[in-house]
Amino acid sequence: MKIRLERSSGVPLYQQIEQIIKEKISQGEWPPGTKIPSQRKLADIFEVNRSTVTAALDELTAQGLLEGKRGGGTIVTNRTWSGLTEWPVLDWTGYVRSGIHRPNSLTIQEINRQEFKKDIIRLGTGELAPELLPYQQMKKILQDAEAGKLMLGYEEPKGNRYTREVLAAHLKEKGIHVSPDSILIVSGALQALQLISIGLLKRKAAVLTEKPSYLYSLHIFQSMEMRLYGLPLDERGLDPAVISACKKQHGADLLYTIPSFHNPTGFQMAEDRRKELIQVSKRLSLPIIEDDAYGDLWLDMPPPSPLKALDQDGNVLYVGTLSKTVSPGLRIGWVAGPEPVIDRLADIKMQTDYGSSSLSQWAAAKWISSGLYAENLKLIRNELKKRRDTALRCLEAYFGGLARWEKPRGGFYIWVTFLKPLAISALFEKALKKNILINPGTLYDKEAKQSIRLSYSYASRSDLENGIRIVAQLARELM
Amino acid sequence: MKIRLERSSGVPLYQQIEQIIKEKISQGEWPPGTKIPSQRKLADIFEVNRSTVTAALDELTAQGLLEGKRGGGTIVTNRTWSGLTEWPVLDWTGYVRSGIHRPNSLTIQEINRQEFKKDIIRLGTGELAPELLPYQQMKKILQDAEAGKLMLGYEEPKGNRYTREVLAAHLKEKGIHVSPDSILIVSGALQALQLISIGLLKRKAAVLTEKPSYLYSLHIFQSMEMRLYGLPLDERGLDPAVISACKKQHGADLLYTIPSFHNPTGFQMAEDRRKELIQVSKRLSLPIIEDDAYGDLWLDMPPPSPLKALDQDGNVLYVGTLSKTVSPGLRIGWVAGPEPVIDRLADIKMQTDYGSSSLSQWAAAKWISSGLYAENLKLIRNELKKRRDTALRCLEAYFGGLARWEKPRGGFYIWVTFLKPLAISALFEKALKKNILINPGTLYDKEAKQSIRLSYSYASRSDLENGIRIVAQLARELM
Ligand SMILES: Cc1ncc(COP(=O)(O)O)c(C=O)c1O
Ligand SMILES: Cc1ncc(COP(=O)(O)O)c(C=O)c1O
Repeated sequence: MKIRLERSSGVPLYQQIEQIIKEKISQGEWPPGTKIPSQRKLADIFEVNRSTVTAALDELTAQGLLEGKRGGGTIVTNRTWSGLTEWPVLDWTGYVRSGIHRPNSLTIQEINRQEFKKDIIRLGTGELAPELLPYQQMKKILQDAEAGKLMLGYEEPKGNRYTREVLAAHLKEKGIHVSPDSILIVSGALQALQLISIGLLKRKAAVLTEKPSYLYSLHIFQSMEMRLYGLPLDERGLDPAVISACKKQHGADLLYTIPSFHNPTGFQMAEDRRKELIQVSKRLSLPIIEDDAYGDLWLDMPPPSPLKALDQDGNVLYVGTLSKTVSPGLRIGWVAGPEPVIDRLADIKMQTDYGSSSLSQWAAAKWISSGLYAENLKLIRNELKKRRDTALRCLEAYFGGLARWEKPRGGFYIWVTFLKPLAISALFEKALKKNILINPGTLYDKEAKQSIRLSYSYASRSDLENGIRIVAQLARELM
Repeated sequence: MKIRLERSSGVPLYQQIEQIIKEKISQGEWPPGTKIPSQRKLADIFEVNRSTVTAALDELTAQGLLEGKRGGGTIVTNRTWSGLTEWPVLDWTGYVRSGIHRPNSLTIQEINRQEFKKDIIRLGTGELAPELLPYQQMKKILQDAEAGKLMLGYEEPKGNRYTREVLAAHLKEKGIHVSPDSILIVSGALQALQLISIGLLKRKAAVLTEKPSYLYSLHIFQSMEMRLYGLPLDERGLDPAVISACKKQHGADLLYTIPSFHNPTGFQMAEDRRKELIQVSKRLSLPIIEDDAYGDLWLDMPPPSPLKALDQDGNVLYVGTLSKTVSPGLRIGWVAGPEPVIDRLADIKMQTDYGSSSLSQWAAAKWISSGLYAENLKLIRNELKKRRDTALRCLEAYFGGLARWEKPRGGFYIWVTFLKPLAISALFEKALKKNILINPGTLYDKEAKQSIRLSYSYASRSDLENGIRIVAQLARELM
């Protein structure tokens, strides 16, 4: 975020900054108690020297609007614009701290902020690079809009019917036979998890998942006081044999799995394990959420059938999304499963956001039904394959003897585990100083202190090369 | 929902139905324990006589796939497709029942379903009629899409920056001075409430609101175990004088209000009350959520300034939406307030759906910045005014002596209160039988057993006339 000052206005820059901050305070944007950004950050925001910022803050402190805080930082004082308040000032910080949903981990908050910095090399980002997003084709879809086919009203609870028909046909190609009534359109796969969390589980419910897992980087279930238990994972996916013991020890209300091109490891569950998992699910009456966000992004050969295609009993809730194959900005995903469950989730969805963007639903239906989905996927696979191979080559070149990893057969990620202990948060910080973002393994498993999730979907091939080289060097220094 | 049978295929219709239901059972769409739709509903879905449905169900029952339930209804039995199961079958109904978020009230679920029925007269619906939605202009906006300006990636946590700049300028016209950093883009105003509920409040927190209120028709706060307290309301809005006593008795962590063209009453909070409310908020350190969904839809003269424009202390979180003025399908709304609060809500939003559709955000920015917002608003006001006046005229004609109401100065609603007691749920049912949907007052206040919310935004003027006439007649019969 940048704020432009009027450099030719004659008003000194520090006074302009003073004025802007005063306005933020007087308008209640920065209410009393707000910790304002650090001097370094402010200098960055206003694009001035730090001394200019200091001059502005000194002025505001002298006026009694700001004060230094014990232990560092500057906060907005309790005097309001018009003088001392008669009443204690509303303490928003109490509200912000006591809300039910947990905040993102500080590392993820930092990543969310830094990702929008210019020239940063994003080695951790789980999304397609901008040059892989289909701007031209999407533009064409929009240009073909017919007023009569657009949808601008509130949609049916499960989402636009035509879009669900298109999705049902799309799922059939994967061996998943569901009618449009058993599909709910959601705003991305993440929202499916959120709805399941508040719609299908009790507080304290036990959720099993791979360890590491994407699920650990979220607080969706934990914020509702649910307990997460991690199951061991290898290159053939999670081992269904351990589930029964885990259930005996902790209970098991739900199992969440990413069988194809798992986030963060890139692993693919083998066919025999898939079959066994379905059997275990039957035997233990254990519902499964199958997150198939990456299933279409195979790079060498298609993965085995989704669990849902093997499920004759309605034990599996299948989750998909357009985020990883088309565009995350569309915010279109889906859940398919038993109709009474889908009805329940649809009702909760109506209660939290009245359905997903109908513009996005319309574009998604056009995208898939026109054949663009299949066509574009080929291009993306091709490009991802090149990037994966570059990443693997660079790992060989720079990480040899330093770490181990498996070649992923699809998706976005390589799970890199250092052979010797090192301070992973220090590696994150040092890389950030060099303008490189990496995702520490600890985001996905508290104990994965020697791993990072490397993504080859975002950085260009030259950035991959440079980034991997520099991270290897930093890691060596830290060991 | 309709399922088309192959009428010329030679296979008897009842066998086709049998086959379709078998598939639903064998694919797990209708898992064991599922209560299947009633015979009447199935006849409707398949567009056949009830006897055809009965023949199909008898066949399935003979095969052991369905069974009649004591007390009525037919459920899927515990035998799976391949014979008797060895293990107890997964009980989804337990999951559906025990989830944390409360289901919508049965009346609202019924309304949500019936709204999509053909030829129904919707006298309760809180949305613009299809003919008032700007299909032609939206098509033009889409056709003008430039690939370079489209946004297809994940957006910043608070939403696309340019869109927030456009919104900041838009809010300035209402006297609300906030920078883009203090604005969060959400998927409709409803989502703002959902985020506030899980982001800013503790369990058991006390939320004050008008009685009746839109808020009572939702379970957003109650599902998180928060307590709602209703404040008395008259044509000049809620009376701030009672807040202090309410706080003493129950506590008060937040006040939710719809000052302009309140849902469901249409009332407008007077200027002196707005000023007083801001003072009370300061004195009691009471945060306010101002829901301004209808503020721009004044029909005679603009309402007084929003509360947020009077708030110098950052006590007000201002919520707006494009749903009532442009298109609900866009799912674009916003929250403006103190930056640390907006940061917190943005973090929760990232954790629940990674941001709103960027296609919708892009269209919203274009819509507002191009001047189409202002231009289209004039047309809509004009049309709404005609419909309001029609509704008022019909009320005079048919409801005279039967009920009382106030003329709304904007928005969508007239709150009609019968002068004598009547069974409001019977009125709802009877109207539905005549293909008319009305919203019983009890949705918005359990005790409002003599009121209905009449909406003039959806039904055409002739439907308004017919609908109001018939409802009056039914009400007289019930008294
Ligand atoms: C396994 C998995 N599931 C779900 C998501 C969420 O994707 P979206 O909500 O954009 O569909 C992601 C994104 O990182 C993911 O990796
Ligand atoms: C007062 C009020 N607020 C919020 C909403 C939700 O609107 P949306 O989520 O579509 O913006 C409504 C819709 O009925 C409303 O009446």
